[in-house]
Amino acid sequence: MLADTPEPPYYAVIFTSLMSDDTAGYAAMADRMLTLAQAQSGFLGVESAREEIGITVSYWADLDAIRAWKRDIDHREAQRLGRERWYAAYRTRIARVERDYGSAEQGSAEQGSAEKGLEENGSNVQGADEQDRAGHGRGG
Amino acid sequence: MLADTPEPPYYAVIFTSLMSDDTAGYAAMADRMLTLAQAQSGFLGVESAREEIGITVSYWADLDAIRAWKRDIDHREAQRLGRERWYAAYRTRIARVERDYGSAEQGSAEQGSAEKGLEENGSNVQGADEQDRAGHGRGG
Repeated sequence: MLADTPEPPYYAVIFTSLMSDDTAGYAAMADRMLTLAQAQSGFLGVESAREEIGITVSYWADLDAIRAWKRDIDHREAQRLGRERWYAAYRTRIARVERDYGSAEQGSAEQGSAEKGLEENGSNVQGADEQDRAGHGRGG
Repeated sequence: MLADTPEPPYYAVIFTSLMSDDTAGYAAMADRMLTLAQAQSGFLGVESAREEIGITVSYWADLDAIRAWKRDIDHREAQRLGRERWYAAYRTRIARVERDYGSAEQGSAEQGSAEKGLEENGSNVQGADEQDRAGHGRGG
């Protein structure tokens, strides 16, 4: 499911990784961390997929929320195991989301940002465009 | 492969999508758009994975580069087909990457940002931490 984030600005933590051969315990820990993250103050949503590489983008209200989650004691142990065992390589990027737009999927009444005209939008390599007309999406 | 981006700041276009049932022509177009995007001025890298949802994060030097790619004539046609056929839902987020860090994978000499102390880093729900000591990663 796509994350139903509020209007920008907010923050994204873009985490990309290559797994090592040692994946024991990883799935259970990932599930646990997801549950814990969702209970954190300032957590807005998460999107995740893995093929050759894994990409997890979590969304947060502000940098303080990201810092607090980083310092969570259970999360710190997961971070240590990730560095030492599970990831052959990883990269974390902290980014401030300045604009967002898209088709309506569900809960479209909350996706007010889709209704704004956004002349200067960017796009993705797979070919999506801005959606500045409300309800154009198939789910709308 | 993880994108070997330069030191921040730079921009990320976070594109997440759910496919429709009509995927005819999608893979070929995605490949073509990737090739075209990589030839654009200001293109820095791309990371992509698809499971339940697809996530493509492309990295750009600045907003002008994103705008120029958005307006590319071949890309515009791909965007139209994406909206009309391939995506049941999608969301595009334009974000300014303010910090990045991670383990060395390859070309680690170019990943200078991994060497900076970053007290206020965030993290991901799967448990990565900052990597502010050079060469700590398995690939380093």
